[in-house]
Parts: sequence; structure tokens; C-alpha cells
Amino acid sequence: MLDAIDRKFAALATDNAPGQEVRQVAADLTGKMIGEKFDGRLVDFSHGDVDAFLPAPNSFEAFEQGVRDGGKQAYTEYRGSRDIREVVAERLAAFTGAPISGDQQVILTPGTQGALFLAVASTVAAGDKVAIVQPDYFANRKLVQFFGGEIVPVQLGYLDEDELKGLDLAALEAAFEADARLFIFSNPNNPTGAVYSADEIEQIAALAKRFGATVIADQLYSRLLYSGNTYTHLRAKAGDDNLITIMGPSKTESLSGYRLGVAFGSEKIIQRMEKLQAIVSLRAPGYNQAVLHTWFAEPAGWMEERIRLHQAIRDDLVTIFRSANLPVAIPKAGSYLFPKLPELRVAPKEFVALLRQQANVIVTPGSEFSPRTLTSVRLNYSQDRAAAVAAAKRIVSMVETYAR
Amino acid sequence: MLDAIDRKFAALATDNAPGQEVRQVAADLTGKMIGEKFDGRLVDFSHGDVDAFLPAPNSFEAFEQGVRDGGKQAYTEYRGSRDIREVVAERLAAFTGAPISGDQQVILTPGTQGALFLAVASTVAAGDKVAIVQPDYFANRKLVQFFGGEIVPVQLGYLDEDELKGLDLAALEAAFEADARLFIFSNPNNPTGAVYSADEIEQIAALAKRFGATVIADQLYSRLLYSGNTYTHLRAKAGDDNLITIMGPSKTESLSGYRLGVAFGSEKIIQRMEKLQAIVSLRAPGYNQAVLHTWFAEPAGWMEERIRLHQAIRDDLVTIFRSANLPVAIPKAGSYLFPKLPELRVAPKEFVALLRQQANVIVTPGSEFSPRTLTSVRLNYSQDRAAAVAAAKRIVSMVETYAR
Repeated sequence: MLDAIDRKFAALATDNAPGQEVRQVAADLTGKMIGEKFDGRLVDFSHGDVDAFLPAPNSFEAFEQGVRDGGKQAYTEYRGSRDIREVVAERLAAFTGAPISGDQQVILTPGTQGALFLAVASTVAAGDKVAIVQPDYFANRKLVQFFGGEIVPVQLGYLDEDELKGLDLAALEAAFEADARLFIFSNPNNPTGAVYSADEIEQIAALAKRFGATVIADQLYSRLLYSGNTYTHLRAKAGDDNLITIMGPSKTESLSGYRLGVAFGSEKIIQRMEKLQAIVSLRAPGYNQAVLHTWFAEPAGWMEERIRLHQAIRDDLVTIFRSANLPVAIPKAGSYLFPKLPELRVAPKEFVALLRQQANVIVTPGSEFSPRTLTSVRLNYSQDRAAAVAAAKRIVSMVETYAR
Repeated sequence: MLDAIDRKFAALATDNAPGQEVRQVAADLTGKMIGEKFDGRLVDFSHGDVDAFLPAPNSFEAFEQGVRDGGKQAYTEYRGSRDIREVVAERLAAFTGAPISGDQQVILTPGTQGALFLAVASTVAAGDKVAIVQPDYFANRKLVQFFGGEIVPVQLGYLDEDELKGLDLAALEAAFEADARLFIFSNPNNPTGAVYSADEIEQIAALAKRFGATVIADQLYSRLLYSGNTYTHLRAKAGDDNLITIMGPSKTESLSGYRLGVAFGSEKIIQRMEKLQAIVSLRAPGYNQAVLHTWFAEPAGWMEERIRLHQAIRDDLVTIFRSANLPVAIPKAGSYLFPKLPELRVAPKEFVALLRQQANVIVTPGSEFSPRTLTSVRLNYSQDRAAAVAAAKRIVSMVETYAR
């Protein structure tokens, strides 16, 4: 028994996961450090700073009202409160451009991570092939592996220097032809901030339809769309029959402390997800669900201002990295930046550890997102602007210090 | 793919799960109803009424402080905030009678359901045999089945009329001899309210040790212990090497709207549980974790009063059922009552549906807990006392109406 379980959990390493640095056995960097420690306030780019970008207005008040509502808010259906699902369905239908049944097509979950877990568990059996984008959110891969699925990678070109431009649609088609029956992708892409074009989304829809494949679209960051870009919702093109879309208020809205996610789409898959949620966590916390009343109902101009402020930080950091000749894509949405660093005199993971110990900067190593991005690092730049700029400059100095 | 997944989810039926009645297709009771509808306020015995027994004092204030603490409370380690784990570890060590390392041996989860899910997932591989008590909490069985384990039932005698008194320890030994390497049980037992004797706990500990078996002990209701009873914590007898104990403030403390659970014990299993939590839900909601500051720190006398009030309802209901010659065990702890009904003129599930439609009483059918308790029903009597008494009398009237 232990052997099978040991193998299963070996694939679930979290040592390099964002926020888990505190549990790492301190890397032995003896003799590796070059030069002195840098001054400067710690910036943890592994996740957004909700003290810099505060939770959306009225969220706490909505929670308080949930507590006042008592039992009916504490105990909801496993898929979440009917009232709140109806409210959320209407707003998400308007946002994504296609109707949603709050009763049949929506489930509220503990975070979007919970939604992703339930969606993958409801669609992947042992031995199934699953098409996964590289680079993409590391949990996609880990979840498929946990349920015994086999990953079929599909590359995404995102740097100016990449020969491949955008998603390798031929590889996606080949994956479906080789019997992959599920495709999981984030849009905007985590970690690069790429947004799929209308043409790419239409082709994904057409391929999925042709092969009868299911798609899980993680659209967590789709509200934080920078000026000059357009966003195409897959469900508006593909319909919901074989599609689960995932969103939540954790990121742009800084409501991660409430851990809320929403999955919507295929009735059949939502039904399975609810059955599974019943044994995984029963439901999203009852009072927390009430916070969703504020979602997509922020005060006028609030979202625009939040986008404007993030865009300013994005532009600062892109300028800093590009001035140092570090290739980086300009994020079209979201708050992730994924610069590619050169080969250095230390291994990539050692450099990440040195960044933390020597420069007070925490980033997530590129190895988490794709075996082809080992020298890249991911930054969530939803941070205090001045602190983020100073930390980005320290990263550049560190790269120069450790250059071969 | 769909076939394997379909089979997997078929075992996860939740239609009869507590609180899910609203999603049932209304049972066709045409021609089945005898007599008129009863008057009387709806009592939902499927879970406790947190409007009758209010959340423990200061819980909302602790949450509010969590929100004020901002980012450091919103984003914690996956296993939960270090500070809170240390606080909880100290109090749980005092309660259970053996030391706990807050750093290494504790994980905070979204509800005790989350803890149970992670514990089972971390110990059961496909094909493993798992010893499960009958009757016991239905999720134990569903979780083992979801991970492909094979259930080895161990009977619990709990009624005066039962020949078997307490746990069938010979059957547990036989299960271990037949290669079961995990034993899952709730103590107090859900649904009967039985509490295992010191002798039973010691024998469980000795058997687990002899066979090198792992044990998951769900002690969710262990604080609500009625006068005249003693409770023996397995971890005080068995040590934590191969044991996970699960508790949480959802029940006795009425904090279910915050969905918090705590698992503690084996470092190795806790480590796996954290790795898995990282892909299941990342963590218990950050702000909600702060509510645990109030746990085991309620005002003096508060818990004693809560126990006294539940004991009064328990005694009322036991008297009502026993006066009608319905066999029922007197719960030693917790707030579940599990009366056995006679064979009626309708099937057990029809009777449960009729109770709801005709008598405004929601109960959980006995089939959820054991294939041998089909005619029993479970009541969570953490309710308004007068309403619970009236509803129990309606159950008795309904039994008399439908008696053969």
C-alpha cells in the first residue's frame, strides 16, 4: 500500500510552490553567494499583495450580512446558495456573452483551486490522455498526474524570439487524434500573461467539437484586461456542453482571504463536481459565499482604476527587464510576468534561493510551469509599485552579478 | 473514459445526503400518503440549527481581526497559519492528553470533511482494504470507494436489543489479518452517539500496533460529552505514528458557516495531506482560520451550558421514541439520535420523503450509514427544543399511521 501511495505523492512536490518557501530546508548556498546582501524591503512576488491592492469594496460587509443571515447562509446546498448562484450566473452570463442557468450550471467552491480540482477529478480517469499547455499553471499538470492521467504537452509561443507564435494548434489536433479527450488551459495564460486570440479560441472550439473533447478553461484573471486588448470567451464560441469555465474573485479583486471559486458550464460535469465536493469539503464556506454578492458589482470606475494601476506596474517592470536584455512578453491581462533569465553561474533553483536570501525577493521558478522554462521566473506584480520596481531592479543586478 | 468516470461517480450519490433534499426530484408519493398533512414548523434534523444554538462567542470578532491583519492572514502556508497551528496544538494537546507539534503535526482544512478527504486520500490506494464501522458516517465509505479501496465492514452493536455489545473487535482483528491496513471510525459514533469505552480504545490501539495499521479517528463531536460518561482519546493510548485525529469547531461550537477542520497526528501523513491540499483547495480560507483563536477558549461555563441544553433535548427525544417502543440508544456524546423504526407500509425512503412532505420533518435515512440500518433514521437534535419535541412526536404519529 505505502509504495503505491508514496509514488502518487512523490509527483505532488510543493516545496517550490508559491508561499511554501518557509517550509523549505534552507538550500546549502555555502560558497555560492557572490557579493554582499542587497538592502531593500522584502517583496514576495509569489502571490499578490492584498495589503497593496486592498480587497474589493463592501466584501467584509457582505460577509457580515452572511453571518447575520445565520443558518440559511451557514448551510447551503453543496453547490452553494441558490440565491447567490442565480446572482453570479446572471453577471457571468453578461461578462462571458452566453446564458447560464444558476440552478443547473454553477457550483461555488473553496477557491478556484477547488473548482479546478473538482473539474479535473470529474473528467480524468486513470490512463486518460490530457492535453496541457506548456507553460501553464503547475496545478493542471499535478492534478492530471494525481488522477493517473497521462499528459500530452502542447507548446505555447509567447516571446518575440519564439518561432512558435501562440498556441501550437497542430499539436493540439494531434493530441486529440492520439485520443486525448480533455484539454486544460488558462486564459490569460499563467505565467506569461498571454491572451488567446479570437482565432485561436475559435479553433480550440472547433477542434474540441470535432473530437468530442472536453475543455476546462481557467479564466481566473480575465477581468484584468489591459487597454488595447480583446478577450474572447470560449463558452461564447463553443457552448457549454463539454466545457467548464472557472473564475473567482481571488486575484483582481484581492478576495483571496475568503477563498471563493466558481465553475460553470456543462450540467453533467457540474453535477459530478457537486457529488465530489460533498466528500471533499462539503461546500464553500457558507458565510464566505455571501461575499460573491459584491462580485461584478464593484463601484463604478473601481475596476478601471485597478487595471490602470496594474498596467503602470507592468510597464515599469517590462521596461526594467527589457533594458537589461532579459526577454519578457508584455502581459495582455492578469498580473503575472515571466522573464527569461540567461544561463547563470548557479543552477536556476539556487538562483531563486539566492534571490530570496541575498536580495529579499521571492519569485516562483520557471520549472514549475514547463520543463522548457527552467531559467525563467514568475512574478506576480500585484504589489506596491515602488517596492516592485526596486525588487525588479535587484533581480536585474543579481542576474548581472551571477552572469557567466 | 466516460465509462470509468461514470462508474466512479455512481458510487457518490448525494441525493439522500443531509441538506440536499432540495435537489431531489420529488418522489412520486401518489397513492402512498395516508391521512392528512400535519401542522407544525419545519424541523430539519439533517443538520444542527445554528439559529437555535448560536455560533460560539467572539468568533465573528476573531474573523474581523483576521481581515484587519490583511495579507499575512489571507495567505498562509498551505497547512495553515503557523501561529494558529501553535495555538490549536497546545489546546488540543491538553484536550487529548498527549503533546502535539504545531509546526509538524497539524493541518488546518476547509471543514472536517476536508480533513477526512485528505487523510483518506493520503492513506488509501486502489485495491487497498479498509476497515469501516457499520453504522458510521457515510463519507467514510464513499471516500474509500472513490479512491478505489475495498471496504471491510466491522459491526457496532449499539441498541439494547443487539446481541453484539459495542465494536466487533474480533472482526476488526480479522480485517487486519486479511490485510486491511487502515481503520476509519468516528468517536462518538455518527449516527448513534455511542462512545467507545477505554477498553475498546486500548484494544483498537493494540490491534493497530500489532498489524502496523493506520487509523483515522474522527472525533468531531468529542467535546459534547454528556454527564456520567468518560471519553478516551486514541492518540493518548496509541501515539501518533500511524494515527490521524480529526476535529473541528463546526458542530458543538456551531461554527459550521466558517468551515474549519483540523487534522493532527502522524507527521508523514500530515505532510502528504498538505501536498494534496495544495491542489485540492490550496488552504482553509485565510480569514476563517483566525476564528480558531476562539476555539477551546470559550467563556467559562459556556460549553457546560451548551452540553446541558443538548442533554435536555436528548432526554426529551429518547423518552418520546422509547414511549412509542421505537428502539434507540441514548447518545453519550454528540447530538445525533438514531432510532430504529419498524417495517412500515411504505419503503424506508418513501417514509423519509413522506415525513418531509406530510409532517414537515427532515431526517437522514439509515441506509446512508449501513446496509443493516435501512429502517432507522438519523436526527441531529441540535435544534430549538420545543420544535424538536413537536417534530419527534410527529415522527411517532407518522410511524403509527404507516404501521403495518
